[in-house]
Amino acid sequence: MQAHQLAEEIPVVDVDSDALTAARLIADGHLLGLIVDHHDGRPYTILPAWHVVQFLVPQYIQADPTLAAVLDESDADKIADKLSGVTVGKLVGDHPRELVQCRADDTLLEVAALVAREKAPLVAVMDADELVGVITVDRLLHATLSC
Amino acid sequence: MQAHQLAEEIPVVDVDSDALTAARLIADGHLLGLIVDHHDGRPYTILPAWHVVQFLVPQYIQADPTLAAVLDESDADKIADKLSGVTVGKLVGDHPRELVQCRADDTLLEVAALVAREKAPLVAVMDADELVGVITVDRLLHATLSC
Repeated sequence: MQAHQLAEEIPVVDVDSDALTAARLIADGHLLGLIVDHHDGRPYTILPAWHVVQFLVPQYIQADPTLAAVLDESDADKIADKLSGVTVGKLVGDHPRELVQCRADDTLLEVAALVAREKAPLVAVMDADELVGVITVDRLLHATLSC
Repeated sequence: MQAHQLAEEIPVVDVDSDALTAARLIADGHLLGLIVDHHDGRPYTILPAWHVVQFLVPQYIQADPTLAAVLDESDADKIADKLSGVTVGKLVGDHPRELVQCRADDTLLEVAALVAREKAPLVAVMDADELVGVITVDRLLHATLSC
């Protein structure tokens, strides 16, 4: 089995697209994250769901989560407002994580080796510069156990 | 909204249970991982899907994934055999990762703060020593955006 046979589609967003829309894509699709395209149309990073949550939670509360308990619940419920007017590029930040990539003709074991080494929940399957799709780790495990 | 309202069920396995069965639960349920109970019945760690993959891939291939390409495909397809006769405890290893936990009455923001700080894809919701369920990060994000 080769990587392209395991690949599935995932929403791709541009760095200039709206962060709130991107966050909704993740939430509504029950996704681990999204692939983010650079201006040149090439996928260059992943926006994981937890990263969006990290962006929403004020720094002082991340440093001491017990402070979250003293916030008024109505304030706490408005944290998503922080995404308004923000781009995906801003959300990703200046140091985007490297997108773990494999080639379309990589074997199951090659993909597994990548997942194991990078502790990656998701691998982008590339055919030259073109995104074929992604392989999630549960899907990889399913294929491995079915051999 | 409180944590217990967001919690959903996830399979729980014992340290002595069969690793192959546990791996199949993850793969078939499209899960991020499983909660692992200790002998005393208390949840103490998570077995993430990528950790199972890491266990399956030989060390020398993790160190150099290009070596995976030179393996015969029929050999590569048999890597899942490594799970035969293995317990979940062995899979988890001697240094299991800490289970990120919140209390049943924690607010959405408290859970978000935990996810943000720990970069956790999954939080266990506890009522004293009892596991109520788990909150996945996409579910948390969904709730946050719905406020």
